[in-house]
Amino acid sequence: MSGVNKRVLVLGGDGFCGWPTALHLSSIGFDVVIADNLSRRTIDAELGIDSLTPISSIAERLRAWKRVSGFEIGFERIDIAADYEALRRLLERYKPGTVVHFAEQRAAPYSMKDARHKTYTVDNNVRGTHNVLAALSELALDCHLVHLGTMGVYGYDSADLELPEGYLDVLLEGRDGAHHRRSILYPTNPGSVYHLTKSLDQLLFQFYAANDRLRITDLHQGIVWGTQTDQTRRDPALINRFDYDGDYGTVLNRFAMEAVVGHPLTVHGSGGQTRAFIHIQDTVRCIAMALENPPARGDAVKILNQVAETHRVRDLAALVAKLTGAEVSFVDNPRREAAENSLAVSNATFRALGLQPILLEDHLLSETMDIAAQYADRCNFDAIPARSVWTPNHNPGVVREQMKEAANA
Amino acid sequence: MSGVNKRVLVLGGDGFCGWPTALHLSSIGFDVVIADNLSRRTIDAELGIDSLTPISSIAERLRAWKRVSGFEIGFERIDIAADYEALRRLLERYKPGTVVHFAEQRAAPYSMKDARHKTYTVDNNVRGTHNVLAALSELALDCHLVHLGTMGVYGYDSADLELPEGYLDVLLEGRDGAHHRRSILYPTNPGSVYHLTKSLDQLLFQFYAANDRLRITDLHQGIVWGTQTDQTRRDPALINRFDYDGDYGTVLNRFAMEAVVGHPLTVHGSGGQTRAFIHIQDTVRCIAMALENPPARGDAVKILNQVAETHRVRDLAALVAKLTGAEVSFVDNPRREAAENSLAVSNATFRALGLQPILLEDHLLSETMDIAAQYADRCNFDAIPARSVWTPNHNPGVVREQMKEAANA
Repeated sequence: MSGVNKRVLVLGGDGFCGWPTALHLSSIGFDVVIADNLSRRTIDAELGIDSLTPISSIAERLRAWKRVSGFEIGFERIDIAADYEALRRLLERYKPGTVVHFAEQRAAPYSMKDARHKTYTVDNNVRGTHNVLAALSELALDCHLVHLGTMGVYGYDSADLELPEGYLDVLLEGRDGAHHRRSILYPTNPGSVYHLTKSLDQLLFQFYAANDRLRITDLHQGIVWGTQTDQTRRDPALINRFDYDGDYGTVLNRFAMEAVVGHPLTVHGSGGQTRAFIHIQDTVRCIAMALENPPARGDAVKILNQVAETHRVRDLAALVAKLTGAEVSFVDNPRREAAENSLAVSNATFRALGLQPILLEDHLLSETMDIAAQYADRCNFDAIPARSVWTPNHNPGVVREQMKEAANA
Repeated sequence: MSGVNKRVLVLGGDGFCGWPTALHLSSIGFDVVIADNLSRRTIDAELGIDSLTPISSIAERLRAWKRVSGFEIGFERIDIAADYEALRRLLERYKPGTVVHFAEQRAAPYSMKDARHKTYTVDNNVRGTHNVLAALSELALDCHLVHLGTMGVYGYDSADLELPEGYLDVLLEGRDGAHHRRSILYPTNPGSVYHLTKSLDQLLFQFYAANDRLRITDLHQGIVWGTQTDQTRRDPALINRFDYDGDYGTVLNRFAMEAVVGHPLTVHGSGGQTRAFIHIQDTVRCIAMALENPPARGDAVKILNQVAETHRVRDLAALVAKLTGAEVSFVDNPRREAAENSLAVSNATFRALGLQPILLEDHLLSETMDIAAQYADRCNFDAIPARSVWTPNHNPGVVREQMKEAANA
């Protein structure tokens, strides 16, 4: 990378993945500027919740990082969806070699709460992503855009396929009767408005890569578990978020939290949903690898699956139950999704780049459970139930009643 | 259709397709309300152009329609992209059985002018469409949404396929080595930011049809030619728009205008682009047919190709030249597209529903040329050249110079 532009702009660098990524990139020699509108903190206030871990203000975070590492990270409070001009000016001034884009509303249940949350998620995510693309095109910057996508764009009806990395080889019958082989963007089947926005992003990327020859990498990430990375551990003011609520909490954090406070582990439906997982430490490593291996100008969007392994939700519940003695409770599933699915995913590119992922069995107790136990007194019990429902005719009362029964069982 | 809800809300009912559709539906017994923010008139003002035909204010249009037909059409000035609440309240009050959605910025060159026009097109079109979907979901209305899409979502690299109606049958290889047949949304390949937004719309529709069981028809329309319909002819105040400028003028109107004012017919590139066409009279008939044949609740999005025929652009130029004696001038192509393509399109559904389309040879002179000649004194010569370019490294000066040379030749 010598002679290469080492300036990185991290959009959404105050969030759960963005913050440890900014620190990781800073620690390995990149010049990092964070742009964030601090919306994740505003949403905490809206929902009346807090990260289980006490997170510092962005100013304190950056001061602490300077103190422990000697490296400076810049910060700009910008809403990239609402303020195109501010984004353009920042890009023009800073001329980053890479933009890492996390600046999207990222919770599926939050995106499904009601019309206001649906429209917010679509407006914020689509406008934000498109503003970045339009600005890179306008400025004709030679800049690599690395975007955090989601495994959820593929959907979970893969009919005995190993999910490829973004593109699917298909055969189709021509007018001449012959079979033609084509590589197409994997047909998307998102399961929530949030996941839908990442499908929309894919089409935006495809267009700007083709028309404007932008260099773009889209990382379809699995469900992230874990909290800390090598950098966030270095000072209490650097600690990362830990979300366990019904909107932003991912499945493992929620199980850990439930186990620690003596709540049964709430499995939605049969727990037969199989999902892909990755540890937050591997997230930041993968992003650095993606950044250091950009596509060439004129290439199609480079799509990588950022995953370590797959697990069935009820197996995860059983694992946490075994480790903690917690009970498992099966409650109504608020999502419209298949009750059971199998899932195989290729992560060939990151494997080839040297990823040796942290696997769930090894680290689950030693980290997630520790964090949950350490900050258990900060837990807001009322925030645990998932209250968003996927369809208008779904009765949220049922979910709440079952949660209550599960809690009292 | 007896006993059926005959109330139709036409979003974008003041525009080139929306206005004659509103009149047609009113004339065949539907109760029609138009919602429009009049943005097409505002954009005229922005670009310093006007419809060649003198169009009346929306109030005059509606008064004239009442006078000649006896039917009343309602009007609400609403920006459906910016004002979700106003849209929701209108839907709640009016409870339409059908919403026909034209309310999108619809010119590819306009969408490519610069970053501001790109972001306007994405914000306006995606938010507008998503607001409609979110409102129908929130209100749980049993309402059929008919949306005007575009042939442009398919792209023009169809590799010897007949373009199917929205869905493509493909074979893919499973982990078991067997071939699995699947019907997928046709992989999109839009050629401009405008076309891109219609590709994004498709994914929005797919999600809301699956998750909320909304009944949705998406009409992938070819390039519209012609101006008047049976209804717009009934009074001078009902006349439809005729756009000939470099942004909003479609190819045939532009050739007609150029021929009438003695300007060479400007063909971009080799003119080897093959496109699908439909007459405005067939547009309004097709929309009525789509409206009367809705998908069932729970069905996938019903996608129909709203096209009559295909033609190569240079053949159209030759036809107009033959009829008028105009010269043909080949100028630089500002778009990033294949120089030559073949195109075959299925319009099986509308054919089966009885469409006997108006074909180009028959009516070209008798209408488009008449309109162009009748209002030639209103032509703004400066507005004819196409000034938007598709890529930052494209030199618009080249296009302008060639236009000037062509004009002086």
